This record gives sequence, C-alpha cells and structure tokens, in this order.
Amino acid sequence: MLHFAILFCLLVASANASVQDFCVADLKAPQGPAGYSCKSPTKVTAKDFVFSGLVGAGNTSNIIKAAVTPAFDAQFPGVNGLGLSMARLDLAPKGVVPMHTHPGASEILVVTQGSITAGFISSSDNKVYTATLKKGEVMVFPQGLLHFQINAAGVTSVALVTFSSPNPGLQILDFALFANDLPTDLVSKTTFLDPALIKTLKGVLGGTN
Amino acid sequence: MLHFAILFCLLVASANASVQDFCVADLKAPQGPAGYSCKSPTKVTAKDFVFSGLVGAGNTSNIIKAAVTPAFDAQFPGVNGLGLSMARLDLAPKGVVPMHTHPGASEILVVTQGSITAGFISSSDNKVYTATLKKGEVMVFPQGLLHFQINAAGVTSVALVTFSSPNPGLQILDFALFANDLPTDLVSKTTFLDPALIKTLKGVLGGTN
Amino acid sequence: MLHFAILFCLLVASANASVQDFCVADLKAPQGPAGYSCKSPTKVTAKDFVFSGLVGAGNTSNIIKAAVTPAFDAQFPGVNGLGLSMARLDLAPKGVVPMHTHPGASEILVVTQGSITAGFISSSDNKVYTATLKKGEVMVFPQGLLHFQINAAGVTSVALVTFSSPNPGLQILDFALFANDLPTDLVSKTTFLDPALIKTLKGVLGGTN
Amino acid sequence: MLHFAILFCLLVASANASVQDFCVADLKAPQGPAGYSCKSPTKVTAKDFVFSGLVGAGNTSNIIKAAVTPAFDAQFPGVNGLGLSMARLDLAPKGVVPMHTHPGASEILVVTQGSITAGFISSSDNKVYTATLKKGEVMVFPQGLLHFQINAAGVTSVALVTFSSPNPGLQILDFALFANDLPTDLVSKTTFLDPALIKTLKGVLGGTN
Amino acid sequence: MLHFAILFCLLVASANASVQDFCVADLKAPQGPAGYSCKSPTKVTAKDFVFSGLVGAGNTSNIIKAAVTPAFDAQFPGVNGLGLSMARLDLAPKGVVPMHTHPGASEILVVTQGSITAGFISSSDNKVYTATLKKGEVMVFPQGLLHFQINAAGVTSVALVTFSSPNPGLQILDFALFANDLPTDLVSKTTFLDPALIKTLKGVLGGTN
Amino acid sequence: MLHFAILFCLLVASANASVQDFCVADLKAPQGPAGYSCKSPTKVTAKDFVFSGLVGAGNTSNIIKAAVTPAFDAQFPGVNGLGLSMARLDLAPKGVVPMHTHPGASEILVVTQGSITAGFISSSDNKVYTATLKKGEVMVFPQGLLHFQINAAGVTSVALVTFSSPNPGLQILDFALFANDLPTDLVSKTTFLDPALIKTLKGVLGGTN
Repeated sequence: MLHFAILFCLLVASANASVQDFCVADLKAPQGPAGYSCKSPTKVTAKDFVFSGLVGAGNTSNIIKAAVTPAFDAQFPGVNGLGLSMARLDLAPKGVVPMHTHPGASEILVVTQGSITAGFISSSDNKVYTATLKKGEVMVFPQGLLHFQINAAGVTSVALVTFSSPNPGLQILDFALFANDLPTDLVSKTTFLDPALIKTLKGVLGGTN
Repeated sequence: MLHFAILFCLLVASANASVQDFCVADLKAPQGPAGYSCKSPTKVTAKDFVFSGLVGAGNTSNIIKAAVTPAFDAQFPGVNGLGLSMARLDLAPKGVVPMHTHPGASEILVVTQGSITAGFISSSDNKVYTATLKKGEVMVFPQGLLHFQINAAGVTSVALVTFSSPNPGLQILDFALFANDLPTDLVSKTTFLDPALIKTLKGVLGGTN
Repeated sequence: MLHFAILFCLLVASANASVQDFCVADLKAPQGPAGYSCKSPTKVTAKDFVFSGLVGAGNTSNIIKAAVTPAFDAQFPGVNGLGLSMARLDLAPKGVVPMHTHPGASEILVVTQGSITAGFISSSDNKVYTATLKKGEVMVFPQGLLHFQINAAGVTSVALVTFSSPNPGLQILDFALFANDLPTDLVSKTTFLDPALIKTLKGVLGGTN
Repeated sequence: MLHFAILFCLLVASANASVQDFCVADLKAPQGPAGYSCKSPTKVTAKDFVFSGLVGAGNTSNIIKAAVTPAFDAQFPGVNGLGLSMARLDLAPKGVVPMHTHPGASEILVVTQGSITAGFISSSDNKVYTATLKKGEVMVFPQGLLHFQINAAGVTSVALVTFSSPNPGLQILDFALFANDLPTDLVSKTTFLDPALIKTLKGVLGGTN
Repeated sequence: MLHFAILFCLLVASANASVQDFCVADLKAPQGPAGYSCKSPTKVTAKDFVFSGLVGAGNTSNIIKAAVTPAFDAQFPGVNGLGLSMARLDLAPKGVVPMHTHPGASEILVVTQGSITAGFISSSDNKVYTATLKKGEVMVFPQGLLHFQINAAGVTSVALVTFSSPNPGLQILDFALFANDLPTDLVSKTTFLDPALIKTLKGVLGGTN
Repeated sequence: MLHFAILFCLLVASANASVQDFCVADLKAPQGPAGYSCKSPTKVTAKDFVFSGLVGAGNTSNIIKAAVTPAFDAQFPGVNGLGLSMARLDLAPKGVVPMHTHPGASEILVVTQGSITAGFISSSDNKVYTATLKKGEVMVFPQGLLHFQINAAGVTSVALVTFSSPNPGLQILDFALFANDLPTDLVSKTTFLDPALIKTLKGVLGGTN
C-alpha cells in the first residue's frame, strides 16, 4: 500500500484545474441568467459556505411585528449555483408576514419557536391551503403562489425557510401595489379597489401618483 | 443513386420505435411533475398540433370588459412537454385584464388589434415597468411577477400571448384574495385592507367567511 | 393602517439588491452557456422589455417571396434568460419559408393574416404533420424537427411565432447545404444529390467548392 | 364594483382544470425520471403540504449517537416536483453523522440546538472546508461531495437540513463499502484497505463475502 | 467499532424506499415528457445497466456502406432518466452516414477504428466545421445542427458516439424529404430542388405523392 | 431557381449575429454556474471541437496500474455548454480505478480493449450492481454513486467513458479521505477506520494531521 502517492497523483493531476464543485458568487463580476460569476477557487475558504446572519432575531418593532432576514446569494455568496437559499422569519405576538410570492422558487418552512398559521392560494381554483404549525412542523409552498405567515402563539414565533433557488425573489403584495408610482387610477382599474383607499395606502407606504 | 432504399432502411429501422419527438398529452393518463403522459404516437395526427380555439373573440360582455382564452396543455394537448403555450386576450373599450401572475412561466405578448397599456412590477424594488403598445409591438413579462393589461384604444384591442411553459398557471389577484373561503380577518391581516371592504369584495366575487 | 411604512421598509431593505427578476442582455459583456450577461438593473427601463421591430412587414420582394424578422435576444435583449423569443413571418402570394430547423427550441405559430400551410417531419418515422391554418389558428412545431411554411392564400399572409428559447437558432436547409464552402463532392456523398445540381445551387446561393 | 362575479367567472372557467400548481405524489402510481405521478388535485388537502415527522428527536441510542430523519418525497409526498425536501439531524454528545454524499442534491444546514462541526471535501483538489457552527448558523454543502457532521457540544445538538431535490439520495460511505455483498477482495482492491479490516467491518455492518 | 450495525440501521431504514438512484425504463408503462416510467427497483438487476448490442459490427452491405446501431432508451432501458445514450457507427470503405440531425441532444464521437471525416454546419452563418479524425480522436457536435460522417480510410472505420439525452432522435435529411408522402410540389417549393429529381429520390426511398 | 441568393440573404441577415450554436470555453474569462464564458465565435475553428488527448495511452506505471485521462471542459473547451465530456481509462494487468464518484454527472462506459469488471453501489439499499464487460460492451453509472473499474483481462484494458456534463467532477475516495489535512481523529470518527491505519494511509497519500 506504500509509496504509490507520487505516481497515483499523475492520475488526477490534469483534472484538478477543471472541476467546478461550487461557484461562490463574485458579487462584483458579471451576472448572467444562471447567477453570478464565480469567485476564483483559490480565494474560496470555508467561511464562504457559512452564514451567520440568521443567528439573531430580526427587528419586529414595526407595524407588521415581523421581520424577514434573507440569506440569498447577494447576502450568502456560497449558495450561488447550488439551487438553494434561506431566510429567517421572526413574528412577534400578532406578527404577520403579509401576502407575498417568490417568483422564482418553491419554499419549505419549519417552525423553530412558537406556532405559526401559514397558507397559500392555488392558481387553478383559488383554493386556500392553510395550516397551523407547531414547533418542528414543516410546510411547503409551491412556486410563485400567494402565501402568508401569521403568528399563532402568544409569544414570538420563529421559522426558518429554504428556497429552491439561490435567488427566489420576494414580491410583497402591498408594496407591489402601493409603494411605487403606479397611478392610482391604474391600480384601481386592475384591482377593483377604491381610489380613495389606494391613495391612503400609497400615503402609508410611500407610493406616489 | 437508385435502389438503396431497402438496404438503407436497415440503418434506421431499430431506431424508429424509440424516438420521442413529441409527447401529446393523454389527459386521462397519469400526470407527473414534467407534465401529462404521452398519447400513443400511433394515434397522433396533425390535428393534435393545431388549435383553433383562439380564432374567435372571447366574450367581453362582463364587468372587466375582457376575456382570456387559454391554449394551455389541458386545452391544447399538443404543447405538452414542448415548453410553450398560448392565450388570447380580448379587451373591449375600457377592458382590463386585472393584476395577476403566472407562477410557472414568463410571458411574451404581441398586440394584434388596437392598443394596450401593459406593465409589470419588479419584486426587487417594486418598480413599475409599463408601456403602451400599438399593433405589432411586443412586450415580455418575467416569470412570476404581478402584471396587467388595459385597453388603450377606443375600440376593442386584442393580444396574443405565449408562455414559456405548457402550463403556466394564472393567479388573478382579486380572485385569490376574495373568491374563496379565506377568513376576512386573515385577508385583512395579510393585506392591510379594511374588513368591511373585504366582505364587500367577497360578496361580489363569491367568497365566504 | 397608518405610519408603518418606515418600519415596514426594514423588512425588505436587505433583500432589495439581491433579486434578479430579469437579466436584460448586455450585448457587449461576456456570454455564457445560459445567455448574455445582465445589464445593470439600474440602467434597465420599460423600453428594454418592449420590441417594435415586428410592427412592419418584412421585405418579401425576393425569390422566396417571404421574410423572417427575428426578435431573438440579440435583437430584443429583454428576453435574455426568460426562455422565450419571437419572430414575424411575412409571406407574399406564393411565398415560402423553406425547410428549416431551430436547433434549440420548439416553436408555436399563430396566423394573423391570410392563410398558411405549415408542416413538420418527425424524426422517428419521417411522418409528415401538415395543416392549412386560417387566421387565428395555432400550430406547434417540436424542437429541432424540419418544418416549413407556405402561403395558402391569394394575398399576403402573416404569422407570429414564439420560440421556447431566447436564442432558438435558425438553420435553413438550402443555406446549410449550398451557401458555404462545403465541397460539392462532400455534399453529394452526404445527400445523394447530383454534383451538377449542387454546383448550380451553390452558384445561386453563393457557395463555393 | 358589484355584480361582476358571474361574468368575470367566464374569464377563468376554461383554465381551471389545466393548472398544475403542485403535484402531490401518488406513491402507488407510476414513477418517472421527474418524480412520482400526481395525486388527483380533488383529493389534495392542506395536510398534504404539512409534515410533522421532524417534530420529535430521532433515536440516538446507537453506536454513532446520531439519527437522520428524512422528509423526502416518499415520506412527505407534498414536495414531489417542487425541488425541495428536508431532514432532521439529532446528534447526542459525541454523535456523528458519518461520511456520506447525496448523489442528487446540494444541502443547506442550520443548527437549531447545540453546536456542530461540519465539513465537505472538494473533488477538484481534495480540499477540506470545515466549520464549527453554533445555533442559528448555516452551512451549504455542494451537490454530490463527501461531507460529515459531528456534535461539537457537550449536549445533544440538532440541525435541520434542506435539499435541492425532493429525492436527494443518501449514500453513507461505510454502508456502501461494508454492508453488502461486495467481495472483500474487490473492496480491498478499490479502497486499498486491508482485507482483514474489511472483513471485520463487514461483520459489524452485516456485509458478506 | 463492533455491534453498531443493528442500531445504525435505524438511521437509514426509513429512507430506503424513497431513493431513486436510477429509473430503468418500463417500456410498457406510461411515458411522459421526461422519459419512460421506472421499472420497479426490486426487479432491477445489474443486467439492466449493461448493453451488449454495440459489440458486433452493423451491417454495412447497403448503398451507404454504413450502419448506425442505437443504444437509446428504447434499446437500453437503463439509460432512461440519466441524460445519456450511445450508438455505434460502422462505415465500410466509402461508407457515409448522410446529413442528419439529433433534435434533442448534442453528440460526442470517438473513432475506434480507421479514420473518419466528420463535420457540422452552424445555423448562425452556415459555416462548416469539419475535421478528419484518426483512431482515438474525439469530436463534438452541438445540439440540433446538421452533421455527417464519412469514412476517410481504405478500410472499415468505426466510431462510438454518445448523446446528451437518453432519446436524442435521429432525423436523416434524405428520409425526411423523400421517404414519406410529402407532395413533390411541396418538397420542391420548400427546398428549391427540381420536381423530377424529387420524384426520382422518392422512388428510391419509398416516398409517394 | 436562379438568382435568388441576394434577396434571399435578406431573410437571415439580421439573425446571423444572434445565434449561439455553441459556446467554446474562454478559459480566461469569467466562469458562472452554467460554465465558462464563450470564446468569440469569430475566433472559433473546427479545431475547437476536436480533442486528440485521448489518442495515446495514459501512464499506468503506478501503484494502481491505471490512468484516467480527462477530456472535460478545461481540457476540451469545445464541450462547454453542450452537456457532455469524456475520459479515457487505461488499466494495465491488475489495474484498478479505485472507488470514486462524479458529483455532477452520470457516466456511460464502453470497453475498447480487453475486459473490465465494473460496478456501482446504490444509495437506497447499498446494493451492488456489477458486471464484467468484454470489448464493445457498455455500462451506465447513475449520477453521484460510488463506482469502480478493475481490469478483468491478463492484458491492458481500455475504456472510453462519457459524462452527462462538461464538468462532471471526480472525487476519488482514498484521496478525499487521506490526501489532505482532515485530522486523523475526524476521519476516524466519520469512517470508523482505525486512527493508526488512517495515519499510514495519510503518509502514503501525502495527507497531514
């Protein structure tokens, strides 16, 4: 068994430079449809595959009493090209993650503290699939469908969610409708909401027009 | 050049049975994540690849003065497995295709009559990308993002849209929120809309709770 | 409902920079197997998602009495990464889009004026699937198979086609065989066409050797 | 805003049957390369998207003082076709999840209790990327590479892991080498381990030959 | 190290049924867009992953002095779902594999006997990429493009080719144009070949109309 | 049929620049998750699609009496983006390609000289699928599973293998475990091998710690 190292090395020498086991994002290099360019493998260290940003609770001192902390490729470059990313949800008592979609990924959620009521709405028949999850329970949300999470406990609840893409996107309904310059008349025509209500919500969320 | 047919045939004979050039949907056989099971190739005819359901105008005698006629795999089995499907949009004067998403596909639209104002909202910064298109102009809507179409002409306008999936899905915002049994309280919590308004819209759209 | 905008913003602030809703092609940056590099999102406007090049008729004053006007990613950078592109076919009376393939995409066609006879040939058994389509009718052509379109009306006919790729490719049979420097002898051996005929066609189409 | 429900319904009526928002696995129907056949949508309920099997600790009263509890498609049919699945790792003090690979998926791990030392080995240059993670920290393991997890705390540690496939596979090195009928001589030749050692390990793990 | 087998087994017991390492084709069960249904894993043996049909030479006693022997999924069910298939090319002296495409796969070829001249034609500018390969040399043919192989030796040459799909398809130009019932007039219009020539070729290849 | 070249050219002129038939790797430009950036098409020649590095035998004068010569994208830039790559295996008498995996690809092998015993181990139940192949026989190895090849003849045997990725990776078990700085204690804990044995193997293979 001895002494074969030197010769054995010849076997794999020529392959070494070619293998792309991973593609840690170089956030400053060109981005393409499949993700960011890869950081040079010689500069990659174990730290590139570790993310500590989900350790602490997000700040829930806000009107929705909730926080979403993302670990997408822009925050966690190690996931680039690997088909996965994460986020942490903190929901204070009465906290709500409002109606939203992820345009580019399915989501799987596990409750790690408290209890959460979550649900999604199918596109085929507008059917609601909703459940109240206790600690350790898992729920999956199919790609692109409207869904929500609500604290179902008297205490702060926490969930960890994983997406089937390093860059799932996050479109929060209220922000999409009311936090931009989409004209009130156009929002009204396309949602059947009252113009006065829209103007109020635009005022609240910083929208104009 | 003559007389090589018989022998030449040997070349391809054994390959004949194996090629799956297409997979026309057998709507009654098992469906999997990649689509419907294939109809037996021996029963496939040219008609399976042709769809006439977009020839006529959809019925726009409704409150939105608009109609969406789909040619998805369930209506047009020939597109199963081919990564494409279509739909026809008819918008009478003042017609609107309300805010909606396609959870599983990007969309490309071409105006074939009249003029249409269309737009989508990005998830990254809620920016609105909107344009008024005249006959022959094309607009593309990235996958999963909220978008809308409004007649911009004094006459009926028509568009043909193609999706990057045989089964793109169609989630119309108002129906997802108000046409089901999602409790009013829950809709209110997750959208910040007024419960009374929600109840009104549920009444209109057939929702309960 | 009031005053939650400022705090609510914290929820999504850190996610903003990371979402790739789209990847408008930067035609001058590196291209990879998945498409062009993305233009900086800050420079993207609604115009990037609109293409007007299919509004006018292509020039059919040619021997085939037909024109194909592409809206692929190189012409319409907004489709990069979105899995779709388009083209317009104009066929004057007796016009023909000759036998061709798209190596990288399936195609769906809708007639918007006149009438068109179209067909494709399966690879498994060389079976021809052909149909004459009137205005509004749709036909789908599976990826990579030889197909053609012929005007079936006494007037100019027009079709809009969509592909399941931003860059479907277009290999026109006559050009592939006769418009290059492939030696006549080699064309003859691989197609069983007469060398004299090949030389004639090469002359017509600008081929050499 | 009133009374448009009935007519509006016409808009989407024909699309209802065609949308495949999800494909809950029918474990008894044919399986294909893309996953299990779909359960009839009419029989799908919210429960299909919820999995409670990760709530309780796995049994770590074994020689490795560890347990892996899977929530793959066979256990959690709701993830079929959605590109995600999960598992729970319990590591008692000194517990170890031995060297293994997932042939079909990348993995993202978050520590929810205690502390875990984890690592993977690159294929390009056999470089080890290892880290000791505390509660809340995340590590990603690229697809197909050998990796391991070891309890780094004096107490039981727990991690939740998500895979980029509903069916990632799990190949544990010792079982692959020693728990089957692969002849000792062949194992020795292909691993350079001593035949006597192999026989011992086979004895322990139930292997033969 | 002893006696942990029984307890260790608990670790993986629940995962056993769920892993789909492979999906050997059940040629009689439903086929979908991703391939054939899987044979029951309990009936799979090593023989399913072995194919002996490429051992012997194909019959080149035909007009093209060549034979293509496929090992696609229909002949070699073990490749179903694995993204690969093979074929063997035998070219007697002066043998030719005529112009053809594979609609669904790229191809990589290695000469194992003799010498072969091969080439493909790009779709973008009809440029010909051709090379004469000696034994052991490799050439790659991008998906969907017209290509050919010609014996370049005075003796029989052999090549082994692999495709990037279990079912690449094989469309031989002469058969697609002349071995079916596509009307002579239509072939002429779409290829600019002389009707008389087409009729001759149809006669040779068994075509009608 | 004459004189249509000039006008016909207009048909495709605008499409020429846009088609990406291939993406030959520019090994010095940015790499992304889908592969290397493309070399400028104007600099691509037929030589980019040909690889001669598998013509000669690899050097088997080593302890394993075997050599693996890769034709991955780093060696053969023409395969970038095409979903395929190759390698040549040379096994002198008693030669062995030791236990290894390809994290990113399935493999198909054909024996071109001598005889080879090959096998892989399933992850689901550690079942061994093994076969002795004679010249011309083919075996397929599903993605990511441990497998091996052993010379089964008294003479040098040769195989050509193709992978379903331009960059399949190659993780050789002994090198992954013993040829790096993974601490002996950690290897022992995760493999149940004896520390003394591990230190010996580390010494042989150049590992430390």
